[in-house]
Amino acid sequence: MKYLEDLIREKGKILPGDILKVDSFLNHQIDVKVMSEIGKEFASLFKEKAIDKVLTIETSGVAIAQATSLNLDNQPVIYAKKTEHKNISYDCYMCSEKSYTNGNEYIVKVAKSYLNKGENILIIDDFLANGEALNALLSICKQAEVNVVGVGIVIAKMYQPGYERIKKQYGDIEILAKIKSMSTEGTIEFE
Amino acid sequence: MKYLEDLIREKGKILPGDILKVDSFLNHQIDVKVMSEIGKEFASLFKEKAIDKVLTIETSGVAIAQATSLNLDNQPVIYAKKTEHKNISYDCYMCSEKSYTNGNEYIVKVAKSYLNKGENILIIDDFLANGEALNALLSICKQAEVNVVGVGIVIAKMYQPGYERIKKQYGDIEILAKIKSMSTEGTIEFE
Repeated sequence: MKYLEDLIREKGKILPGDILKVDSFLNHQIDVKVMSEIGKEFASLFKEKAIDKVLTIETSGVAIAQATSLNLDNQPVIYAKKTEHKNISYDCYMCSEKSYTNGNEYIVKVAKSYLNKGENILIIDDFLANGEALNALLSICKQAEVNVVGVGIVIAKMYQPGYERIKKQYGDIEILAKIKSMSTEGTIEFE
Repeated sequence: MKYLEDLIREKGKILPGDILKVDSFLNHQIDVKVMSEIGKEFASLFKEKAIDKVLTIETSGVAIAQATSLNLDNQPVIYAKKTEHKNISYDCYMCSEKSYTNGNEYIVKVAKSYLNKGENILIIDDFLANGEALNALLSICKQAEVNVVGVGIVIAKMYQPGYERIKKQYGDIEILAKIKSMSTEGTIEFE
């Protein structure tokens, strides 16, 4: 998605630790117009699929998933919750995740009542680096016995293990901006 | 907003500790159509105001703020971040907040670069109970020297101290569903 690549080049900041900061339009501050363009693009990529629900993970996935649903058929959006507390909830599907950005370990949870066996789920998220968050969502979908009909990611660092790791488990993954390399001098190359 | 009151009566669950659970449509699972109705209502209530940005707090405020912006002029949405870690960030406005739902204390943060002195801000949030989250957002707005031109809340428990507390600091507050009383037997009365 050329529009998004240009925006990342213009507004993204590369921080030490190979972190791409896009919080002026994607997370923290949300550019609602950009969100709508992203939503339209995902809707066009997945329009042939039967989709019952859109699943994402808090917080940065919420606006993207909502924009996607608005451009499909207003399917319910479910956002998995992240918590550092390890209390077991028997009414939730759970999986642990280690954050790429801050190294913290989280428990990812979805209430069992919102994922019903056999439903068709589109997974949407903002970033793919090591694939921890996505892996947790796929594990939750497996526990719930739902069908993952597609995975849509806004930005992926293709040189990190996440893409291959997820691709192996689940083939149908769409990425809007594929980063081939980036340097702290501010250069970003896309595939 | 009659539509919302009916929905809360139909789908809300009252839990011990005076908690109203509406996570089948407002948070956790998001009914995108309900969100659009809420967005239209806030847009109509605040349409006369000059609004530069919509400010909310993660996670449950994000979808509501986005729906509101989409029905106004696609203003940027900023979501304050909550963290349990007390590291000081010099590039953020910060305020502490104690959650009504789980009693945990959080630091609420907004990057200084996204709130500019003199900007007109509409604050949007899902719930008002004791007013801790809203109070943190108002404190951040004060630190940033921005003008709060309106506060929109989806559901308020009017019998708790939050409403009066916020009203005293800031007069122009719009609430879509004003709960007068609720009981664990499932009865909810609106004002």
